[in-house]
Amino acid sequence: MRVLITGGTGFVGSRLARELLKRGALNGEPIDQLVLADQFPLPEAAADLAQDPRVQVRVGKLLEQCEAFKSERFDGVFHLASAVSGECEADFELGLRSNLDSTRALLDALRIAGHRPRLVFSSSVAVFGPDASNPMPPLVRDDTLPTPQTSYGTHKLVCEHLVADYTRKGFIDGRSARLMTVTVRPGRPNGAASSFFSGIIREPLAGQEAILPVDPSVSHPVSSPARTVQGLIAVFEATQEQMGGRAALNLPALNVKVSEMLDALEAVAGKGVRALVKQQPDPTIQRIVAGWSKGAVAARAERLGLQPEKEFADIVLQYIHDHPGAVTEQARRAAADYERGRGH
Amino acid sequence: MRVLITGGTGFVGSRLARELLKRGALNGEPIDQLVLADQFPLPEAAADLAQDPRVQVRVGKLLEQCEAFKSERFDGVFHLASAVSGECEADFELGLRSNLDSTRALLDALRIAGHRPRLVFSSSVAVFGPDASNPMPPLVRDDTLPTPQTSYGTHKLVCEHLVADYTRKGFIDGRSARLMTVTVRPGRPNGAASSFFSGIIREPLAGQEAILPVDPSVSHPVSSPARTVQGLIAVFEATQEQMGGRAALNLPALNVKVSEMLDALEAVAGKGVRALVKQQPDPTIQRIVAGWSKGAVAARAERLGLQPEKEFADIVLQYIHDHPGAVTEQARRAAADYERGRGH
Repeated sequence: MRVLITGGTGFVGSRLARELLKRGALNGEPIDQLVLADQFPLPEAAADLAQDPRVQVRVGKLLEQCEAFKSERFDGVFHLASAVSGECEADFELGLRSNLDSTRALLDALRIAGHRPRLVFSSSVAVFGPDASNPMPPLVRDDTLPTPQTSYGTHKLVCEHLVADYTRKGFIDGRSARLMTVTVRPGRPNGAASSFFSGIIREPLAGQEAILPVDPSVSHPVSSPARTVQGLIAVFEATQEQMGGRAALNLPALNVKVSEMLDALEAVAGKGVRALVKQQPDPTIQRIVAGWSKGAVAARAERLGLQPEKEFADIVLQYIHDHPGAVTEQARRAAADYERGRGH
Repeated sequence: MRVLITGGTGFVGSRLARELLKRGALNGEPIDQLVLADQFPLPEAAADLAQDPRVQVRVGKLLEQCEAFKSERFDGVFHLASAVSGECEADFELGLRSNLDSTRALLDALRIAGHRPRLVFSSSVAVFGPDASNPMPPLVRDDTLPTPQTSYGTHKLVCEHLVADYTRKGFIDGRSARLMTVTVRPGRPNGAASSFFSGIIREPLAGQEAILPVDPSVSHPVSSPARTVQGLIAVFEATQEQMGGRAALNLPALNVKVSEMLDALEAVAGKGVRALVKQQPDPTIQRIVAGWSKGAVAARAERLGLQPEKEFADIVLQYIHDHPGAVTEQARRAAADYERGRGH
């Protein structure tokens, strides 16, 4: 089968690609070709993907790539490409173009191509937000009314409904999965307002200071990169019956306070590492984060066999194992001690 | 002030225009010009509007008219233009273009013009529908989770969220009001799957047979043209605080069974008129209607002082009063007797 990943050279996209190539199949069908469409080429860290003969990378804006998709056959699509929350707040037109127009163009291209591919759309927990008429519950559920408080959340919600309608009409077999905040992301901070959730772990582990722009009491639903990728694949492989309808579902979340994240960082990597996190409130980020949910539950995803991490220390350890070169020798050793102590 | 009504020569649009001209003001500000943008010219029945010096009619597709709006000042906008449910199911591309793309273009034109007009978007009770993960309650509320089961309902919901986000960003002062099924509509049947709700009253009153394509036990939330127009104006004149948030609100509904509609028709106009309604099931319409709500409540609209009709007979009488030329002499006389009997 031919599989397309939009945003395929990004962090989640390339990690998903690697997992799919390792499995070699989706839904029991061998993957013959994996097309990674992205505005950026594969980073050096993903050289393994570039060397796989099944991988084809296409660099260019998604909106412009869609024309070609109209005359191609894809059997499966993971639609991950997206401008992130901070970018969308800063540049309204960019957000609409990158998220709404591009998704519309992709869905239309697949409709016109006529092969009815299965498609997973990566929506986001950012669809939820408090409105004067709709206070947000402490934990957002699959069927919590979304009233998004950011353009990013608005676009994700709008696209969930477009995916559902193209599916109802039989143009695709689509499903939307709401990703929790994926952490720890490697590399540089990105434009997401949630970027600090990775930064406050990643930078200290590299021996660098990190800015915490919100209060440590802030609670948030997060997930590791590995569980996120696992979730996307499980949602792809589920039948519509197992999905329990066309409405979007939440992926599993570990609901955690920033203070608990920092406690876990200290437990795994030591006091000195945690001390590198400096609190420095940022009103813009505080305002955006105040509109996000404090936690999530994922009943439908659990029925697909998906579970969140048990504790945040596991997420810190996953990052250290996956990116040893980005972690100081001292922090790596502390983590090894911690794991021995836990009896791993 | 300058006011724009998209879909302004249509049934609800021209009725709204007439009411605004009669009032002469919105929010206490005199209306200097009323622009009616529509793909069709004013019908002959609306010659009074054409003669009003405050009225300017612009004929053309909304998508094409939006370019000009970028350099115009509008202080108020009623965005009513829309392809209807049956059309959207029959022609997927037309629906997306007429409802999603046109709304996007209108909102962008208003954003670029930069005058931050107040805007009322006419959404619809069709945003609600049953999904496997989200059964519909017997009465849909302002905060019922919408999982639309038609393209029309999808577009309306998507545009509600776009209006909310353009409002959050300060580009417009927008609010979305979900119209109930407006009945009795005069003239010819339109492409809406709900068209029969008017047809089964209008045609018999004119002495003609009408087809009832669904079971008489079907229940549905309806509103008269007059109350609908009153609702749109009240939503325009409300402050955002009175609106109670940016999320769309339901307009008041009279929740009524088709059999009760026919009973009211008989009570007002006589047995012979009711006998002109012939049951003839239409699977396509039945399927669409099965995905609609059976009734609605409108808590937020009630707080704005809006109320539904008390009984369906009032809606039948409103039609007879407003369109005497489209009603047989016999039915008009029966209605006059009925009103006398009620002590009107």
